[in-house]
Amino acid sequence: MNDEYAGDSSQWAFGTGFEDPLAGVDTTVPQGVDPAELAAYCLMLGDDALIMSQRLSEWCSRAPDLEEDIALANMALDLLGQARLLLARAAAADPGVVPALPEGSPVPAEDALAFFRDAEQFRNVRLAEVENGDFAHVVVRLLLFSVARLALLERLRTSPDQVLAAVAAKGVKEITYHRDWAGRWFLTLAQGTEESRRRLETALEALWPYQAELLAPHTGFGVDPATLRGEVDVVLDQVFAVSGVERPGDAPPSDAGREPIGGTGRELPGGTGRDGAHTAALAPLLAEMQVVARAHPSGRW
Amino acid sequence: MNDEYAGDSSQWAFGTGFEDPLAGVDTTVPQGVDPAELAAYCLMLGDDALIMSQRLSEWCSRAPDLEEDIALANMALDLLGQARLLLARAAAADPGVVPALPEGSPVPAEDALAFFRDAEQFRNVRLAEVENGDFAHVVVRLLLFSVARLALLERLRTSPDQVLAAVAAKGVKEITYHRDWAGRWFLTLAQGTEESRRRLETALEALWPYQAELLAPHTGFGVDPATLRGEVDVVLDQVFAVSGVERPGDAPPSDAGREPIGGTGRELPGGTGRDGAHTAALAPLLAEMQVVARAHPSGRW
Repeated sequence: MNDEYAGDSSQWAFGTGFEDPLAGVDTTVPQGVDPAELAAYCLMLGDDALIMSQRLSEWCSRAPDLEEDIALANMALDLLGQARLLLARAAAADPGVVPALPEGSPVPAEDALAFFRDAEQFRNVRLAEVENGDFAHVVVRLLLFSVARLALLERLRTSPDQVLAAVAAKGVKEITYHRDWAGRWFLTLAQGTEESRRRLETALEALWPYQAELLAPHTGFGVDPATLRGEVDVVLDQVFAVSGVERPGDAPPSDAGREPIGGTGRELPGGTGRDGAHTAALAPLLAEMQVVARAHPSGRW
Repeated sequence: MNDEYAGDSSQWAFGTGFEDPLAGVDTTVPQGVDPAELAAYCLMLGDDALIMSQRLSEWCSRAPDLEEDIALANMALDLLGQARLLLARAAAADPGVVPALPEGSPVPAEDALAFFRDAEQFRNVRLAEVENGDFAHVVVRLLLFSVARLALLERLRTSPDQVLAAVAAKGVKEITYHRDWAGRWFLTLAQGTEESRRRLETALEALWPYQAELLAPHTGFGVDPATLRGEVDVVLDQVFAVSGVERPGDAPPSDAGREPIGGTGRELPGGTGRDGAHTAALAPLLAEMQVVARAHPSGRW
């Protein structure tokens, strides 16, 4: 495509003047918190945001109208911002999570995490990575994602880690809007035409099996997503009730047409996105996201 | 690709509940202002913003690092917002500019302008549409564009059209940031490595011939961009001086490898983007931007 995608190794750059997203923030890990556990937790939430952001940004200039184009781009940007902070927090807490780059590489730690890990090192839920479908699909994906993420971030505002608490406080405002946007569109599509409702139900059926992974138990540092199931159910049931859509039954994701790296159900050890077991959709997404950075691993432009 | 890109004509939508970007704003055309001239002027500025936004958003998830990815996405979004308001203002001033759609289509006027015009109906400068190159290319394009647009919007804050004045006031804040971002990167690349400087100069050489079009004379309603040449030159010369880069000579764009619809120089009647004479890069950009909306011309999702 363009010049700089060609993979030449010219280094036309330098290493100063780039902002640390946590500049001025005290990143000392609080007493009693295990740095590796804190980093693992931030990585999980950061990867969720990063991969969702990429999928949403694929809608750039493809939404049905300018208003929704702007809304989707805004939400992608919110999530990219959350990802950057969370990945930076993970790296500051435990530099051991950052991929090793050639000596002297000036790549910031959060960029190394975003651009120099392979699929099996990502810890995002599979809901975030599956391929985009139609507009109903992005509405359902964002609804399921935002309802769970908002519940989690609300609790994390009082995290013993002050950095994570601050990121959560900012995120709550953003995700509140995302959840409202998705809920409003869910209702609109449900009560629109027969076709809009059919598409909504098709998307819900396809994505619902991935919802459980958002609430899978997590031990160690941080709020356990499994403890959020009650309030998440209340919110989703409310959306279903208002829109007259039946709540789907719980079943493991169908992996027809995909090649999961690991297992398929959340009960199986090593079987979910949290363990690095992703659908075949993740690798192509990463290939596109990482191409420029990898073409110049030791340069800054 | 996905379901809804397939071009089927199912209408799975409805026509209510969509916000008018100018809701609550008095869109009466002021006395003494010719509605057609006002619309033509807003279209010109709106198209500049729309097409630049598309080119910038192609950088989504392709910037060299997360920080610049976020910056570019933010700027694309600012411009998309400006485009939406300006196209809505054009349509409200003179409904005659809006493409005719099938009876009963609920497509808002600004969307009809964005999605249902062909290349020769767009009034943007060619600087906005030429294909993306490397990172230096986006820096130079944004610098040339922002310096001229900021000078124009600053004057338009006192436009007799209150709507345009309000859009300009909002835009000044946004474009100030864009110009600063581009200027900072211009300097950084100029003083970086030999390779970064070489790339910067290559980009400047390629894009400079399109700069004059930003300042081409415009008669009728609105601030004439030609009157801004002095202050635009001062700003650019300052950037060149600080970064030690030579100001390129003025020459008409080379159309090697392109197929201009019209002429090549701004002096020729019918010869610039403002007259609908675009490079061959515009049509593919529009094809991608318009595919979803055109697949469902009379539906809303």
